[in-house]
Amino acid sequence: MKAGGWTAVWFRAAAACVLTLCFGCLHVVTLKSQPLTRFGGFPQSTGPPISYETFYFGQKIDHFGFLEDGTFKQRYLVADKHWQQPGGPIMFYTGNEGDITWFCNNTGFMWEIAEELGAMLVFAEHRYYGESLPFGQDSFSDSKHMNYLTSEQALADFAVLIQNLKSTLPGAQHSPVIAVGGSYGGMLSAWFRMKYPNIVIGALASSAPIWQFPGMVPCGDFYKIVTQDFAKSGSNCDANIRKSWKAINNVSSTASGLQWLSEEFSLCTPLKNKNDAIVLKNWLQETWVDLAMVDYPYEANFLQPLPRWPIQVVCKYLGFSSTVSDYQLLHGVSQAAKVYYNYTGSTSCLNTSQTATGSYSRLDLPGACTEMVMPMCTDGIQDMFEPEEWNFQAFSDECNAMFGVRPRADWADTVYGGKDIASHSNIIFSNGGLDPWSAGGVTHNITDSLVSIMIPDGAHHLDLRYSNDQDPASVRAARAIEVKYFQKWIREAEKTASKP
Amino acid sequence: MKAGGWTAVWFRAAAACVLTLCFGCLHVVTLKSQPLTRFGGFPQSTGPPISYETFYFGQKIDHFGFLEDGTFKQRYLVADKHWQQPGGPIMFYTGNEGDITWFCNNTGFMWEIAEELGAMLVFAEHRYYGESLPFGQDSFSDSKHMNYLTSEQALADFAVLIQNLKSTLPGAQHSPVIAVGGSYGGMLSAWFRMKYPNIVIGALASSAPIWQFPGMVPCGDFYKIVTQDFAKSGSNCDANIRKSWKAINNVSSTASGLQWLSEEFSLCTPLKNKNDAIVLKNWLQETWVDLAMVDYPYEANFLQPLPRWPIQVVCKYLGFSSTVSDYQLLHGVSQAAKVYYNYTGSTSCLNTSQTATGSYSRLDLPGACTEMVMPMCTDGIQDMFEPEEWNFQAFSDECNAMFGVRPRADWADTVYGGKDIASHSNIIFSNGGLDPWSAGGVTHNITDSLVSIMIPDGAHHLDLRYSNDQDPASVRAARAIEVKYFQKWIREAEKTASKP
Repeated sequence: MKAGGWTAVWFRAAAACVLTLCFGCLHVVTLKSQPLTRFGGFPQSTGPPISYETFYFGQKIDHFGFLEDGTFKQRYLVADKHWQQPGGPIMFYTGNEGDITWFCNNTGFMWEIAEELGAMLVFAEHRYYGESLPFGQDSFSDSKHMNYLTSEQALADFAVLIQNLKSTLPGAQHSPVIAVGGSYGGMLSAWFRMKYPNIVIGALASSAPIWQFPGMVPCGDFYKIVTQDFAKSGSNCDANIRKSWKAINNVSSTASGLQWLSEEFSLCTPLKNKNDAIVLKNWLQETWVDLAMVDYPYEANFLQPLPRWPIQVVCKYLGFSSTVSDYQLLHGVSQAAKVYYNYTGSTSCLNTSQTATGSYSRLDLPGACTEMVMPMCTDGIQDMFEPEEWNFQAFSDECNAMFGVRPRADWADTVYGGKDIASHSNIIFSNGGLDPWSAGGVTHNITDSLVSIMIPDGAHHLDLRYSNDQDPASVRAARAIEVKYFQKWIREAEKTASKP
Repeated sequence: MKAGGWTAVWFRAAAACVLTLCFGCLHVVTLKSQPLTRFGGFPQSTGPPISYETFYFGQKIDHFGFLEDGTFKQRYLVADKHWQQPGGPIMFYTGNEGDITWFCNNTGFMWEIAEELGAMLVFAEHRYYGESLPFGQDSFSDSKHMNYLTSEQALADFAVLIQNLKSTLPGAQHSPVIAVGGSYGGMLSAWFRMKYPNIVIGALASSAPIWQFPGMVPCGDFYKIVTQDFAKSGSNCDANIRKSWKAINNVSSTASGLQWLSEEFSLCTPLKNKNDAIVLKNWLQETWVDLAMVDYPYEANFLQPLPRWPIQVVCKYLGFSSTVSDYQLLHGVSQAAKVYYNYTGSTSCLNTSQTATGSYSRLDLPGACTEMVMPMCTDGIQDMFEPEEWNFQAFSDECNAMFGVRPRADWADTVYGGKDIASHSNIIFSNGGLDPWSAGGVTHNITDSLVSIMIPDGAHHLDLRYSNDQDPASVRAARAIEVKYFQKWIREAEKTASKP
């Protein structure tokens, strides 16, 4: 089993190669010690200052049973500055695994199109994240309290919230609603349109790997794309990373080697044994994956503060064309890793129990151990990682040992349609060619109204970010097409509504 | 609040006018003391002897949570005599509230078309009915055990079962599946196609009142149709029933009147007070509703053994054209009621705690008190019943007092789309013009592939029954159209499957 990096830690956990080893390298955007401010002054933050109101809606804890009749406060953010009343559209962000203010701040696309569409923006927080805790501080205390953390419940939250907004908000009764989401939130957007077409007239599912489930796509594609990103960002870059694993094995076989590695990588906690070296390797693997996700064409601070085209910068340290010693190679690797972890120069030491800016939390595992089973594998040939097969049984056993639950490998296929979704309509699947998650995305048109938009030089949901002078033409075109679809759906909805 | 009769007691209960009064008059086909044999020798039983195999599938108790990880045995019946392997279609009956063998025996239409379609027949039992009890004998012991009795869980059962059949049954992997159901089972069929279009290519929803929910249709339409059935089955028939309520009030105001009523109606338990007279009225109202549902054109034994066009027979006793005494009027009413309860002449006394052949069971209430809120009302003018308004709050209070749960008035609309279902496809909604449940049915085409078939002289899901020499032309035509749609869907599915 292999780990795939992502802000959606449900998936990250699902894909965890060896859970006990990978836990340390998972990260969660929700658990940042300080709330992220929008782009922290980085130059891509070119949007106007945003302003929204925060509301809370009394949501059923269990939509699918009636024994647990309690409610919790679901947070949602509303910006109606440009909303054309009555009946103007509502752009509805289907919150993913994190504090909704973070997604609100990182989805510049919605802010930029609000005026053109005359739209209200709503950002709805996903249950169990941010402030939307079904049982308050007890929400994660045990599996009983976590039982309502499923995508189905989250979709029902969104549906009920929208129905409530439309029935209580003056002018919203006939407002067409469009779902928007990225990553896991994009999956939710797509599924939302599939399951509740009465609630949303369409959906933009950006970088949404709805096919990264058993039997749908080859388990190795994810890491192949990561590898390709490095291969095309610098000569020998992927090849040298492929060699680095054995170099770590070699160097870490002695005490002095471990000490050298610890110093070379400026580790906060020195490596003590071979097992620590495995942690180091997993952490590096996660790092390369994260870099592939955030390989943006401009300075950005999505997971970490990073230069433009960060993989190109990383690869400058990994360009050895001839055979070098293990130590020389790993020196390059350490320099490369520091591009990711210390671009600002303010990091005193690197922590292998963290990737990006977050840290692992068990909160995020149950999705992976229940309905979000995402097979990943590597072969070391078509990708630059150590070979590792996908082993569902081992994964299931790990889940059972840790949480007392077993994942349902086929449930996502059954409930969300898998590859057989052609009867649905009005969904845009946008994917970045650099984004490893495009491996599980919908990258071809299925019907006239289930369309795919490829952004060849885009990383993870680049289209949802604020526009930037350094944006490639492909993402500009993608955004323009997306808006055209929104306008088309809105026109069609208005036409339907005006029928006697 | 008003009671509407139906084999779907979820709905019957939902509509119960005054729960404490109506409980006695509810009936459940599942609770017959003996399993119904197919038509019991009545002449409409013209189909060939049927033969099926019985299987059990280990089904998750909770599809939407992972804490309750237990399974139960879901029963399903398979008849593959005419199945064309590999890839022949599967006609899948989405079991409703009752023993699946009863629906299997009463859905002659499926048996009659199996050969023409080369189809396998599967009849899947609804959880909590027949032998498909999630917690065995404890399934109804308390609200905790009954928590998983919802339509969403039932649909998930069907989906998982079909996925399993297709992956394990040789020759079934590429079999297109069509859902068929009547009444509440028809609602499930329609919803099944809406929510799981990846599992079923289309659905026949016969007499499925998917719009009998708050705000979708006028609450009085149901009883208007009942009244119209009586109005057109005999002169003055509806008018005399309308007068009968006051006559019962008058006569029951004295002890001798109560005694006379008890004897006249051959009641098993004599009436003792005014309250018993209210029970009598509710029981009669239920009886007229049941008659409207089973007003079939031939002798049948669906809820009760009955003559052909039973309302015409009933109305022979209610044809008074001039003013008659209360006693004369009620004599006619008692004769009319005995058509329903004693057509065979073998009934020694009538029991007002039962309508049709069943008796009330609390098992069936939670659906009504949770997600199946079906408003009904009468005004005594456009219908022949005592006026009674729909009062959701009172209904909710009753549910809360009895089961500790409150119904969610808007949930069915939110989760199943209400009137906004145009984005779905491949559903036939067939309705009988005589069937009061057509009030909540889809009685006009919504799109080219969401079609309505009206059977003007049909009662409750007549089209699903065995064909009969006395069938009106309308139901013959309906069945022929239904088969054409099935064939069209199957052809389209085969075309899609054969694409590279």
